[in-house]
Amino acid sequence: MTTVEDASRPSRLAGPDEGISLEELQLAARNHGLPLEALRYDVTPAGLHYLLIHYDIPALDPVTHTLTVDGAVARPLTLDLATLRDRPRVTRQVTMECAGNGRALLRPRPVSQPWLVEAVGNAEWTGTPLAPLLHEAGLDADAVDVVFTGADHGFERGVEQDYQRALPVADALRDEVLLAYEMNGAPLLPQHGAPLRLIVPGWYGMAHVKWLRGVTVLDRAFDGYQNAVAYRLRQEPDDEGVPVTRIAPRALVRPPGVPDFMSRTRVLRPGPCTVDGRAWSGYAPVVSVEVTTDGGGTWSPAVLDEPTGGEFAWRRWRYDWTAQPGRHVLGARATDASGRSQPVEQPWNRGGFANNLVQQVQVAVLPD
Amino acid sequence: MTTVEDASRPSRLAGPDEGISLEELQLAARNHGLPLEALRYDVTPAGLHYLLIHYDIPALDPVTHTLTVDGAVARPLTLDLATLRDRPRVTRQVTMECAGNGRALLRPRPVSQPWLVEAVGNAEWTGTPLAPLLHEAGLDADAVDVVFTGADHGFERGVEQDYQRALPVADALRDEVLLAYEMNGAPLLPQHGAPLRLIVPGWYGMAHVKWLRGVTVLDRAFDGYQNAVAYRLRQEPDDEGVPVTRIAPRALVRPPGVPDFMSRTRVLRPGPCTVDGRAWSGYAPVVSVEVTTDGGGTWSPAVLDEPTGGEFAWRRWRYDWTAQPGRHVLGARATDASGRSQPVEQPWNRGGFANNLVQQVQVAVLPD
Repeated sequence: MTTVEDASRPSRLAGPDEGISLEELQLAARNHGLPLEALRYDVTPAGLHYLLIHYDIPALDPVTHTLTVDGAVARPLTLDLATLRDRPRVTRQVTMECAGNGRALLRPRPVSQPWLVEAVGNAEWTGTPLAPLLHEAGLDADAVDVVFTGADHGFERGVEQDYQRALPVADALRDEVLLAYEMNGAPLLPQHGAPLRLIVPGWYGMAHVKWLRGVTVLDRAFDGYQNAVAYRLRQEPDDEGVPVTRIAPRALVRPPGVPDFMSRTRVLRPGPCTVDGRAWSGYAPVVSVEVTTDGGGTWSPAVLDEPTGGEFAWRRWRYDWTAQPGRHVLGARATDASGRSQPVEQPWNRGGFANNLVQQVQVAVLPD
Repeated sequence: MTTVEDASRPSRLAGPDEGISLEELQLAARNHGLPLEALRYDVTPAGLHYLLIHYDIPALDPVTHTLTVDGAVARPLTLDLATLRDRPRVTRQVTMECAGNGRALLRPRPVSQPWLVEAVGNAEWTGTPLAPLLHEAGLDADAVDVVFTGADHGFERGVEQDYQRALPVADALRDEVLLAYEMNGAPLLPQHGAPLRLIVPGWYGMAHVKWLRGVTVLDRAFDGYQNAVAYRLRQEPDDEGVPVTRIAPRALVRPPGVPDFMSRTRVLRPGPCTVDGRAWSGYAPVVSVEVTTDGGGTWSPAVLDEPTGGEFAWRRWRYDWTAQPGRHVLGARATDASGRSQPVEQPWNRGGFANNLVQQVQVAVLPD
């Protein structure tokens, strides 16, 4: 007899010499990262922002789509898009990163979406703040969690589900949290949650529920799959673990020179060049970026440009380098105002979440 | 001493048990396919069309960008975007597919961009026909090839190059070939060749040169890398090989039911359902599609919908299926008016090009 378990199996770690599997490749072929040269743009153009979609992209009609607000509230609400668009309108630049960014570089490798370093983007999201809507609905005094339900549906590790993620009430009530219906000045694209998604500035992507159709207030902690099982930092499968929340600081280098098609090694001629990139953190503003050109052996300070996108957007940095013939490994590390920084050796967790290992950009500088 | 060969190595085949390498994964993370549920759209929305970018996406200024037409012509031309936009304007729906689609399923696997089956899209391209421009420039009587040069630059198998591909003169003069500056009614996105690209309806993607800056007419065959080395069908590295040109017929199934996150196996409940998808060929119109639900053992005819996008766009097909509990492997095969169809066992070539093996969609139908 065919069972759910035939199609939807437990999580696993890759073996010591196991290459990327066809299952991981299926995810890599449909989801995608930011091509690193696109770090040049302050705001990531349509189609270049990273995407991580658990199930299928649903087809929703923006005219008939509604958002319900219910659960532990005094006045449940049902709102259509036109009503949401008539409410106060806010545009906010937000750097979003997948919680699994960097997973494929961990040893042992958790088998899931095999990100290298590129699961990031910085977009302008327009929508209406969530908090006033929750206040209008009237939160019960004993409200604990707010559950956000997407219209996407599938199976994961044996559990059939709508995609659902909860925020603690205090986080859901942050001024910055938006119900967004536009990205970069245009209606949301299907793959970014059309017609409505949640934006939780500073948090990893799993919190920014796409294809949003329901907001449910609970008087207890949400025990759904994405909060209780999936997005937790743990060493062993049975650990209770710690929830994945805000984005750890990271800097990425915009690779200098030109690439080799296959190896993506960067090829440069010797001489002075400016290396630049972006840095962000979900905890606090980035206060410094350091650059290495020897794979982490030595570090030099980069110059931080003035912020261009507000407190939740990435910040450009640059570093003047004189490229000498030979092989080099470039990287950068960000430090934020909370004192958090990036490791050169990555602490491991079983889901491969929230890691922010320093990037390694392979560079070949040709002889004079 | 660091040499080009350190960064840019010869092509190779994967070993018999070799998983996808980190080099292949780097390509898969930046390029991406069409999420198969997006086969629902007649016209592929922005950001869902497949992408294959050899080097970096260049940053070009549409105001100062020019196209030169030179070589074996009587009157060399230099045109800016405004001039091209003032010329006759044509919009054409074109299904484009990467020549390497399906490569990662070949045994042995050529090590390159590791596509499964999803390197396709169908967009509306707007631009001006190329042929009148070539006639205005005045082709020499002994013209043989027309070389199209992009602004993207890099290394490939040891060869530094601008991306350049040539068409035989007769193909370059086809009425349908466009210099395109819009996609789906909007200016080209950076990753699709902004501000100008070539569109060669019916041909694999390598012919549709992006970031187009030069058109050069030759009185001899073009011997550049992408024509003479890369995109050829060959069995051994030293074979002369046969050029990759038009798109072989292919049908894809839009996967029914809902997915498991990791395995992408489709989960269904038993009962009647309509399976649908798209079919296309670069040689001639698709005249029939057959569907298998047992991995190629038996085939049944699908219904072809009326064409919606003209002779170079994919065509929707559908098939009524009664899903019975158990495991099934769905696929479809297209046949075109030239008599070409799709194999169940794929002929192999060293580049992994132009293959059109029947897709295998794993389906688990749960018990009643």
